[in-house]
Amino acid sequence: MMKLIITKDYQEMSELAVQLLMSYMMKEYPTNLAITAGTTPERLYEILVPYVKDHGQFANINYFNFDEVPYKGTDSYGVTMSNLNRMFFHPANIPAKQIHVLDEKNYKEHDEYIEKMGGLDLIMLGLGKDGHFCGNLPGTTKFGDLTSAVPISVRPDMYDIILDEVGYQVDKVPDFYVTMGPKSVMRAKNILMIVSGTHKAEILKQVIEGPVDEHVPSSLLMLHPFITVIADKDAASLLTAK
Amino acid sequence: MMKLIITKDYQEMSELAVQLLMSYMMKEYPTNLAITAGTTPERLYEILVPYVKDHGQFANINYFNFDEVPYKGTDSYGVTMSNLNRMFFHPANIPAKQIHVLDEKNYKEHDEYIEKMGGLDLIMLGLGKDGHFCGNLPGTTKFGDLTSAVPISVRPDMYDIILDEVGYQVDKVPDFYVTMGPKSVMRAKNILMIVSGTHKAEILKQVIEGPVDEHVPSSLLMLHPFITVIADKDAASLLTAK
Amino acid sequence: MMKLIITKDYQEMSELAVQLLMSYMMKEYPTNLAITAGTTPERLYEILVPYVKDHGQFANINYFNFDEVPYKGTDSYGVTMSNLNRMFFHPANIPAKQIHVLDEKNYKEHDEYIEKMGGLDLIMLGLGKDGHFCGNLPGTTKFGDLTSAVPISVRPDMYDIILDEVGYQVDKVPDFYVTMGPKSVMRAKNILMIVSGTHKAEILKQVIEGPVDEHVPSSLLMLHPFITVIADKDAASLLTAK
Amino acid sequence: MMKLIITKDYQEMSELAVQLLMSYMMKEYPTNLAITAGTTPERLYEILVPYVKDHGQFANINYFNFDEVPYKGTDSYGVTMSNLNRMFFHPANIPAKQIHVLDEKNYKEHDEYIEKMGGLDLIMLGLGKDGHFCGNLPGTTKFGDLTSAVPISVRPDMYDIILDEVGYQVDKVPDFYVTMGPKSVMRAKNILMIVSGTHKAEILKQVIEGPVDEHVPSSLLMLHPFITVIADKDAASLLTAK
Repeated sequence: MMKLIITKDYQEMSELAVQLLMSYMMKEYPTNLAITAGTTPERLYEILVPYVKDHGQFANINYFNFDEVPYKGTDSYGVTMSNLNRMFFHPANIPAKQIHVLDEKNYKEHDEYIEKMGGLDLIMLGLGKDGHFCGNLPGTTKFGDLTSAVPISVRPDMYDIILDEVGYQVDKVPDFYVTMGPKSVMRAKNILMIVSGTHKAEILKQVIEGPVDEHVPSSLLMLHPFITVIADKDAASLLTAK
Repeated sequence: MMKLIITKDYQEMSELAVQLLMSYMMKEYPTNLAITAGTTPERLYEILVPYVKDHGQFANINYFNFDEVPYKGTDSYGVTMSNLNRMFFHPANIPAKQIHVLDEKNYKEHDEYIEKMGGLDLIMLGLGKDGHFCGNLPGTTKFGDLTSAVPISVRPDMYDIILDEVGYQVDKVPDFYVTMGPKSVMRAKNILMIVSGTHKAEILKQVIEGPVDEHVPSSLLMLHPFITVIADKDAASLLTAK
Repeated sequence: MMKLIITKDYQEMSELAVQLLMSYMMKEYPTNLAITAGTTPERLYEILVPYVKDHGQFANINYFNFDEVPYKGTDSYGVTMSNLNRMFFHPANIPAKQIHVLDEKNYKEHDEYIEKMGGLDLIMLGLGKDGHFCGNLPGTTKFGDLTSAVPISVRPDMYDIILDEVGYQVDKVPDFYVTMGPKSVMRAKNILMIVSGTHKAEILKQVIEGPVDEHVPSSLLMLHPFITVIADKDAASLLTAK
Repeated sequence: MMKLIITKDYQEMSELAVQLLMSYMMKEYPTNLAITAGTTPERLYEILVPYVKDHGQFANINYFNFDEVPYKGTDSYGVTMSNLNRMFFHPANIPAKQIHVLDEKNYKEHDEYIEKMGGLDLIMLGLGKDGHFCGNLPGTTKFGDLTSAVPISVRPDMYDIILDEVGYQVDKVPDFYVTMGPKSVMRAKNILMIVSGTHKAEILKQVIEGPVDEHVPSSLLMLHPFITVIADKDAASLLTAK
């Protein structure tokens, strides 16, 4: 069942998330972690890096990204991998062979690839203000979707969202982005959701206390048997039962 | 992720379900199993009884029913517990202290009770022709519902359904029945769904290959990270990928 | 902790072992099983074969043997693999890619190989009249040994034991056999020990109720946190606490 | 299998141990932790306390001590519980109902008590310079021992050891102390061993690289399938393979 942990602030939220991640790092057998980019985990990665950097004893970990916005017309990493590289993979010197990239070319094989690897042991993700997780924005995917491509035409406002993602480079806006779907994410053996800030308070209340509804994609995740939500006091401020 | 196992017939479906159940019986620590009444598991319980009967070494198991239709105006067991008693608890001589009854009096505390017991290790359930599981018929509960009471007035045809359940004793039709909700069932650490017969083929196809939709309640369960579906060839006959 | 299950006879012992094995077969992700040859599992494999034969849905299973007596001067399978082929792999049509052979050529890499595969999920083994498991006869290996080669010269009577193993073909007696050691076996996540017959009653009593002692190698396994012993009534007849 | 993690110093060893402990704190269901007193975990508890103090969300945790040296002629807590109270239970305001005390009066029921509670999820322990863990000093217990009383007369030098434990109060030296035995500790689902300092380097080498031998009690623990050893660089300085 969902385990909710409320921390006093963003720093403590980041510390507890690191503790949970580190418990996976210390496992004796190959372990598969899908991790999030975005702004919520920034402090978390700062704390995590020194523990993991050049640490051969954590070589069992396979890292995965769970969505990607490709830069159109380039062969370089997309938005998500660029951010993960900047925040975590590069400063922590994670060897390339431990990083399993999801991108616009291989997304159709992604679910089967993960299955053959033994499944994700943990997926760590954030919560969007609109209730999205990974690239599952309201109106873009269905609860039953696996990893798939979402065309920019899916919603009238998606062009602006993606334009923002690619740093307002008009010629780099792709025709679609890729994301693990709700069904893919629910397959993970454990889920960690991190939430911070008063601007997330309303959506967190809806996700935890409202109905399970495709218009609030993250509401589904609350039904995962092994999900931990770590929210700081600000994000949790509107919850009825704390 | 969902693991689908197709057996050659009803007998083999029953045998594989017994094998899975027995693996829980053999665990060294207290183990919590919620089990189903109905017609699908009849053969299964016949096979199971001799293994479990008077078997002190399986005393670690706590049994739970997951729904109940009370007989109005009586203090006796309801429809579900009566059937479980007849098919399994009585022939297997399961001591009363191992049986944890959900009924119309205690249903409000049921989810918390299970939580304090450490959660359900396994829930075994069938699939209704309308896509229901436990007492979650289309239009009666929402994906986000915990254990709750469903009034007979919830659907125009519910009176007839319940009248059939209580053996056409008009004066025994209750005002409501109780059931673990979708959210309660998804909290189980493992789910086993058993399905048999050509009359289940169409709904099984919809549950496995169709959208996740509250009108087909069991479609949600396919998103549980640890669900096994054992279906005989007849029930699986319409599936695209086998 | 050790879970002891006493069955009424050899047939029931075999059935319960099959139930436990089948629960691993039904897992959704790659699963690693090391299984035993010898006479105790003969009935067990007879029961198991029809469930597994040509069953593509159990293709996730990786099988391992845990010891081998090579036939000297030949390139063919040794005694253990020959017996496993005869009793299980051949009648069940297990594809070669699912069988991971330990032999006199690769034994030095065996422990690391298993580690990279994610560890053994289950090792099923029997109990020798002298307290041995796998090829760990008293006086041949130490509790701290990993997979290793045991020279025939290790004990004066070993030549006769191995001569018997190779079917009294004097020219086929090898200079050494190979076996997973106590340390290798204890690394398995779960252990299943099967024991049958009055001729095993005395050693089973010693293993379960006597001291943990290298002269009774199997006594160590009783300290594994997840070991199940399935013994028939005859084998369990001398136990104090049943 | 044993997972060895070497940290740069005592501070990092303490931090990693806290991370592992905290991952258990965050579990959704009742969780059983046996924890160590002694000097090695002092820094660890300092780091842990602010995370746990008055934290109602970690109310699922049951704490256990694993040995006790009673003060003769008093009814107060013994040496171990006094130290755990001072270092952790009191500063963290752990409610009494979460603390399950092992002492000289209840030790005979301790193993069965833990079994009924569902087993220990984790036991965290240190390594003595003589290779002991808990109260299992060389020559005092056997590998097959459960929780038991060790008479002071067991070894000629035990009186001095215990006199030191009770703060050189001659009249407080008890006739015996109690300890979970090797067999009890091996039943834990996970073991965490913490080791710090150059004065532990020689024994750690022996424990990890030497034979499994009752004269070095901790050598047995290396055979637990789920043991993590966190050692600082000083303690690990003599290890061959790092």
